[in-house]
Amino acid sequence: MKNTFGTSVAITLFGESHGPAIGAVLDGIAPGIPVDEDFIAHQMQKRKSVSALSTPRRETDAVKILSGVVNGHTTGTPITFLIENSDTRSGDYNELTEIARPGHADYTAYCKYHGYSDSRGGGHFSGRITAGLVAAGAVALSALERKGIRIGTHISACAGIADRSFDNIEKDLQDLSSLPFAVLDEKQGSLMQQEIAKARQEGDSVGGILETAVIGLPAGVGEPWFDSMEGLLAHAIFSVPAVKGVEFGDGFALCGMKGSQANDPFRMDNDKIVTETNHCGGILGGISNGMPLLVRTAIKPTPSIFKEQQTVHFKNGTDTQLSLKGRHDPAIVHRAVVVLDSVIALVLCDQLALRFGTDFLA
Amino acid sequence: MKNTFGTSVAITLFGESHGPAIGAVLDGIAPGIPVDEDFIAHQMQKRKSVSALSTPRRETDAVKILSGVVNGHTTGTPITFLIENSDTRSGDYNELTEIARPGHADYTAYCKYHGYSDSRGGGHFSGRITAGLVAAGAVALSALERKGIRIGTHISACAGIADRSFDNIEKDLQDLSSLPFAVLDEKQGSLMQQEIAKARQEGDSVGGILETAVIGLPAGVGEPWFDSMEGLLAHAIFSVPAVKGVEFGDGFALCGMKGSQANDPFRMDNDKIVTETNHCGGILGGISNGMPLLVRTAIKPTPSIFKEQQTVHFKNGTDTQLSLKGRHDPAIVHRAVVVLDSVIALVLCDQLALRFGTDFLA
Amino acid sequence: MKNTFGTSVAITLFGESHGPAIGAVLDGIAPGIPVDEDFIAHQMQKRKSVSALSTPRRETDAVKILSGVVNGHTTGTPITFLIENSDTRSGDYNELTEIARPGHADYTAYCKYHGYSDSRGGGHFSGRITAGLVAAGAVALSALERKGIRIGTHISACAGIADRSFDNIEKDLQDLSSLPFAVLDEKQGSLMQQEIAKARQEGDSVGGILETAVIGLPAGVGEPWFDSMEGLLAHAIFSVPAVKGVEFGDGFALCGMKGSQANDPFRMDNDKIVTETNHCGGILGGISNGMPLLVRTAIKPTPSIFKEQQTVHFKNGTDTQLSLKGRHDPAIVHRAVVVLDSVIALVLCDQLALRFGTDFLA
Amino acid sequence: MKNTFGTSVAITLFGESHGPAIGAVLDGIAPGIPVDEDFIAHQMQKRKSVSALSTPRRETDAVKILSGVVNGHTTGTPITFLIENSDTRSGDYNELTEIARPGHADYTAYCKYHGYSDSRGGGHFSGRITAGLVAAGAVALSALERKGIRIGTHISACAGIADRSFDNIEKDLQDLSSLPFAVLDEKQGSLMQQEIAKARQEGDSVGGILETAVIGLPAGVGEPWFDSMEGLLAHAIFSVPAVKGVEFGDGFALCGMKGSQANDPFRMDNDKIVTETNHCGGILGGISNGMPLLVRTAIKPTPSIFKEQQTVHFKNGTDTQLSLKGRHDPAIVHRAVVVLDSVIALVLCDQLALRFGTDFLA
Repeated sequence: MKNTFGTSVAITLFGESHGPAIGAVLDGIAPGIPVDEDFIAHQMQKRKSVSALSTPRRETDAVKILSGVVNGHTTGTPITFLIENSDTRSGDYNELTEIARPGHADYTAYCKYHGYSDSRGGGHFSGRITAGLVAAGAVALSALERKGIRIGTHISACAGIADRSFDNIEKDLQDLSSLPFAVLDEKQGSLMQQEIAKARQEGDSVGGILETAVIGLPAGVGEPWFDSMEGLLAHAIFSVPAVKGVEFGDGFALCGMKGSQANDPFRMDNDKIVTETNHCGGILGGISNGMPLLVRTAIKPTPSIFKEQQTVHFKNGTDTQLSLKGRHDPAIVHRAVVVLDSVIALVLCDQLALRFGTDFLA
Repeated sequence: MKNTFGTSVAITLFGESHGPAIGAVLDGIAPGIPVDEDFIAHQMQKRKSVSALSTPRRETDAVKILSGVVNGHTTGTPITFLIENSDTRSGDYNELTEIARPGHADYTAYCKYHGYSDSRGGGHFSGRITAGLVAAGAVALSALERKGIRIGTHISACAGIADRSFDNIEKDLQDLSSLPFAVLDEKQGSLMQQEIAKARQEGDSVGGILETAVIGLPAGVGEPWFDSMEGLLAHAIFSVPAVKGVEFGDGFALCGMKGSQANDPFRMDNDKIVTETNHCGGILGGISNGMPLLVRTAIKPTPSIFKEQQTVHFKNGTDTQLSLKGRHDPAIVHRAVVVLDSVIALVLCDQLALRFGTDFLA
Repeated sequence: MKNTFGTSVAITLFGESHGPAIGAVLDGIAPGIPVDEDFIAHQMQKRKSVSALSTPRRETDAVKILSGVVNGHTTGTPITFLIENSDTRSGDYNELTEIARPGHADYTAYCKYHGYSDSRGGGHFSGRITAGLVAAGAVALSALERKGIRIGTHISACAGIADRSFDNIEKDLQDLSSLPFAVLDEKQGSLMQQEIAKARQEGDSVGGILETAVIGLPAGVGEPWFDSMEGLLAHAIFSVPAVKGVEFGDGFALCGMKGSQANDPFRMDNDKIVTETNHCGGILGGISNGMPLLVRTAIKPTPSIFKEQQTVHFKNGTDTQLSLKGRHDPAIVHRAVVVLDSVIALVLCDQLALRFGTDFLA
Repeated sequence: MKNTFGTSVAITLFGESHGPAIGAVLDGIAPGIPVDEDFIAHQMQKRKSVSALSTPRRETDAVKILSGVVNGHTTGTPITFLIENSDTRSGDYNELTEIARPGHADYTAYCKYHGYSDSRGGGHFSGRITAGLVAAGAVALSALERKGIRIGTHISACAGIADRSFDNIEKDLQDLSSLPFAVLDEKQGSLMQQEIAKARQEGDSVGGILETAVIGLPAGVGEPWFDSMEGLLAHAIFSVPAVKGVEFGDGFALCGMKGSQANDPFRMDNDKIVTETNHCGGILGGISNGMPLLVRTAIKPTPSIFKEQQTVHFKNGTDTQLSLKGRHDPAIVHRAVVVLDSVIALVLCDQLALRFGTDFLA
């Protein structure tokens, strides 16, 4: 299944950045969940650019719901989100269709689709396709919130500048929900934005690391061996363009620890079992342990840069130089924040429905 | 699908570490592939301990093939691998069934299985279940090798000691195939082994990072959005116990680079399209680009340590102390090398069969 | 996966009969297949009513393609078909939302969706949703035709009147492709239409049996045990509303035969292996044998009838009588012909892509 | 997924009739379900032959449980059933490996596996593989029974002799559970057995129709469009060898009815909603309605007959005659009874776990 992910709750993505419309079908979400179109619009807005930092391309990104919602509630049948494309200026891309942009999917798409895929602006590979994920994710996030499950992501690092770590997660998530540039330490956020602006001036780009926390998830969700929480979340997260690494809890940093440091001691907190630390990121044996789920995601620098690059004309088989024109973000890491929230919400809705039944989120 | 992974080529794992037997069913592998039982035994041996470093538990790990192989060739129908357990000394575990070992799945399994799962030695969560993966992986590796696709893993870091990076990958993979402790720089390997021995003396454990390279993979394999090479490989790799992070190419290190550094320039190499560097690890847009596929996997320190730990008795809901007895590895990172090779081989066989048909590997 | 079917080539259906639009996403079809919008329109027209026989409701059923087709060819990425609803007159259904129409899904939908589903005109259960199947099926049929694989369905029986059986299948399929009422014997077709007209006058409805033939399918497609050709085709066919039976070859009639009658003798036809008879419908052991694939599908009488019926008000829990108003077909069997062709084409595209690779149909 | 079926509860089949062992892995069944090895043995016995009617081949069919059961209860992790083959006399099959037995999978297996599959006794296509289904099905049937869901199958027709229909289903199921030859009317059963004996004398074989009833299934199970109860059950049932037709409720007979006859009127039965008749077989819109689920399955005559048959030598490409030797059943319809019960139980366990969560059957 290529553009569909999930078992009990599944998302299907469609569209190309320069076609008439893109969108998503969200299937299997429980009936009776209130659908707040303002919240969807709010999430769509978060996915869009922060003025000075991002692409001057302006999609209105109005989301039309074509099915699955009646009287403001989910029906239980597939919800279809449609987002029309506008302002696409395909002219900027005309010369590119046979020249491989380094870091992009042009050449690999050519190997797979033999030149038939729509390469304008990335086509079906475009980050724009995440708009459908975000629309569907908004419904998933609302459904989870009704069960006391909250998700939030901050920019843990960008262009070499680090944000502080999660501290009081509940409060941190509350704060993050309304921020246009999702950092826990505003000062570090300013430094990041300066670096992004600098990259823009240089015709270059920067990447970053996103850190996501989930609270309120019940213990006992996830399945050995292959439907581990880590495996399923990573599978979905790696589908987001530009993601090149995923780690849970302390992740790669665990490799330098001793077992006596890495193991999280259990203790009773009144009648609840908790762990003293959370190096494992809330997952043991692939199954949630009731502590906050923590996942970190590496976002590579946006591959679209204005600096001249060495590449090939892949139909002619000749070397060439490429200087991109048009509108390109010097960073997408801040725009990916809401995409991560959305993807993780969708996976969790699926896992909870599998574990507790299709009515669990109703 | 919980213990089954794959679509055209699928693996199903079964068994508990202290039951009569464990094993795997490998389904969908092409007919006519030679099955070399010596190679399977060789791989099983690699998964076992290196004398001084690992658990004194000695399974003979003889693999019986119950189906799917006739006259030394795959039939195309399911291959069943059976490995009997022996020497299990369950007594060592008796006291543990209701005390959560920190870093282990005891408590999360209890939340999920309500106390019915076999908790002796980890039961179905035991690293021992990877023996079935390795047996099946041996067939997958042989199938790939016939198509010129080779896979190898080295211990990139262990207990804070770093191995050198891949250099001449073809030669490096050749060298790694016969090494009992898979490092590219023997001296660094000695230092790692000293650290492992030291951890053993301290009743503690260490973790590490594995780096895997795949060469010979054709360009054009992988599917947007959700069946990206990264997503599928990460999904499977996170199923391996103790894995807490997965990154492709330069992974998390990409986040500190500029786009102009991270983008791999394309160039012609005679009539072949290659990239000058390989920061992306051979995958662009989720699709292979024909360069070596590179993936790094974080293995947390073995959670079974002898030092006293704080934990809870999860049925009684009381705090308690735990000092493990029995046989436990101070490191499993070197034993995970062959498991990674196996898991990756299985995913690639599946992806190639989906892309080029069920006879591709025949 | 609820509204998605297929593995390598997959279809996702969405929409409700009285919402703004319905449609389908066709994912995984090979790149480079010509998409003939006239043929799609032709198929949509076949799904619509034959003047005197069917519902006076008139959808224009114009199919918009939102993605996946560029310059008249498939791109290899998801194709989205959108069909706007119009002329829905929801008023006719207002009284029905809590009264179970016998033979319909109102009550079972209520049990599943707790009253949140859109029940107007069947909502997501409406036969109208097959329009998306037919649009996607048109692309699948075109793809198969390029490989010499042809599919056709006739009304084998309707209202107790039988059509003749397939004889010269190639010629029969040719003839069927242009018929508005798909019978092989025109005279029998007239009798059927008389019975349908009579049922209309009585405020009643009739059902029928469809027989489908596929020629040109290579031998060796299908997988034991669970991905048998019969299992996959039946799974998909039973998704079509009103289908209550599926049989392959002589199906239920085989049960009264002796083995010596039912076995199809093999023989050489020049250098090709054929069978003398085709009682098995072209499938042995779940795998195609290269002979015509034959499948018969039972369509129950349309449940929407005007005669007064005994039923319940399922929210109140009271008995009641129901007399339907509005526009209802006295038969859908003739409209289901193109739906069957479409469903079967989609399953075969998937199976061929799995067997021979994603480029097979390219 | 070829030899694996199911989503939340999944079965994987393996083995060949003349290899060392066959079996099944049952994954995802809830923890804590009592496993009664006597009941498994009882079911295995039902699958075996009734003295005079069936193959003289005698497998002891002792089922070894290798995993997933501890202290007589399911653990929630995969249950592995192993059944050793014995008494295989492969000599009888030696001459057959390149001659296509009419009605068998020899030729289609050759097209698919290029001669590598194990063709002795049908290999992986053998009806013997159903033994694994029956073992797993026994656990599924026990799990369902704890929830008040009961399944039973009778031989509705065999060799042209008809059994009476279900009447008092609860009592009929009770009676069927202990019968060696599953008919509701003993006299008709005797006539059937006479016909089977006669077919044996003639070196021929007969087929039949099985009718299965399920009671106690809650309303609201099944999913439009593609995971309809009919679609999922038919998919699984068509996996059973020799099945060529599946119908629900009145199935094909509905096609000759008027809507006013075929629609089942709803009525209140105290505070429960029931239907007056059950032509639809307990399923409307693909979702269970709480009435008995009824499904009928067409079993073709056993293709192994002793009469001389026309066929081909498929490697040489020459016509030839074939007279089978060895041990072959003149009918398998009575042996398929328990296989149908098992398959249906497995599908229902999966559907109930998806609908109500993984603990529903616990």
